[in-house]
Amino acid sequence: MKGRKAVNIGYTFRDQSLLKKALTHISLANECGIESNQRLEFLGDSILSFVVAEHIYHEFKNMDEGRLTEMRAAAVCEKSLAAAAREMDLGSGVRFGKSETVCGGKNKASILADTFEAVLGAIYLDGGMEPARAWILEHLGEIIEHSSKMDFRNYKSEIQTYFQKRDKGTDVVTYRMTGRKGPDHKPEFSVEAVYRGKVIGKGTGGSRKAAEQQAARQALEAL
Amino acid sequence: MKGRKAVNIGYTFRDQSLLKKALTHISLANECGIESNQRLEFLGDSILSFVVAEHIYHEFKNMDEGRLTEMRAAAVCEKSLAAAAREMDLGSGVRFGKSETVCGGKNKASILADTFEAVLGAIYLDGGMEPARAWILEHLGEIIEHSSKMDFRNYKSEIQTYFQKRDKGTDVVTYRMTGRKGPDHKPEFSVEAVYRGKVIGKGTGGSRKAAEQQAARQALEAL
Repeated sequence: MKGRKAVNIGYTFRDQSLLKKALTHISLANECGIESNQRLEFLGDSILSFVVAEHIYHEFKNMDEGRLTEMRAAAVCEKSLAAAAREMDLGSGVRFGKSETVCGGKNKASILADTFEAVLGAIYLDGGMEPARAWILEHLGEIIEHSSKMDFRNYKSEIQTYFQKRDKGTDVVTYRMTGRKGPDHKPEFSVEAVYRGKVIGKGTGGSRKAAEQQAARQALEAL
Repeated sequence: MKGRKAVNIGYTFRDQSLLKKALTHISLANECGIESNQRLEFLGDSILSFVVAEHIYHEFKNMDEGRLTEMRAAAVCEKSLAAAAREMDLGSGVRFGKSETVCGGKNKASILADTFEAVLGAIYLDGGMEPARAWILEHLGEIIEHSSKMDFRNYKSEIQTYFQKRDKGTDVVTYRMTGRKGPDHKPEFSVEAVYRGKVIGKGTGGSRKAAEQQAARQALEAL
């Protein structure tokens, strides 16, 4: 336990050994021959999917199941869970073996997200569904709300389908990067959508893919 | 409701409209402008994953999370759910639009599996987690038990890795079909695994892939 800070996860365990297991990374488990948090992560993952599904099923009565599926995927993605884990400084509580301590495991998004799920599994085993549900909504409520406003349309697919139907051909819309600026951790890409040699839309975004979607969106709007 | 038989799903709904919605296929919903069972299916899918995860987490304490994940995937796959749906003749209860009635929708595995999940979602909304859990274990208990004994080893991958390590080369194990017998709905394939021109194993199976795995398994055992 040397060097491990107490983390405030906002739930008091009756059985502290569950929390300890939830914070035991596989690297330490392998070194010491103890159980890692991976089985708890498996359980927590399924609780998370269910609770978020039930929540958005009731909250967004007009959304079809395709949109609900996209929304849940956005809300429970690695990035979201890692952000929630960082807010409660979960990384500082994880017990690593030597290898991961050296490799900076406590800041890795994948490890943070997995630990979030393992702690959730432990809360469920300790207190049942109600505290597990409350914990999820406390830590992911805002992200869920945000994801309900996200734009999941696939403009690239839509513009391609449009031209295929109109021209009955096999020509494809291509995308070419025309610029990249900003620092490495916050790049901005500029992209042009091209159809039959003609620029039909331009877009910018924090990733090449996002910029392509914006270019396709502009092309659709210009039709 | 013309032509629809009553199905015995083994749960009595307080709110019959939930069952009706769970049995409303999208083809009818589109024709009549009513709500289909797809949102219920989304909810039911997440309940199913959670309940099976929790069940196998407790039942199989010595399985690691990789094996638990494989086991759950096998237990809740389309084939398993369709088989459970067929046992209670769920297909006869589904309300289809004209298109799917003509296309024999009530016998399609995908539709049966989706309906299973939709009915599960409806049971949960009607009675809560306990009857939902009981219904799952009643209908899938045997399949879960069976999947705990399934062999998830990937012999093809294992034999390839073996030769790669031994010979430090890039030669690959190839597979060739040597025979196929049996009727179309129950074929039996015969396959040979070949490495550097030499037959190293033979296998048979209900699919080409299964036969290849068996051939690879024999090759591994003969090492």
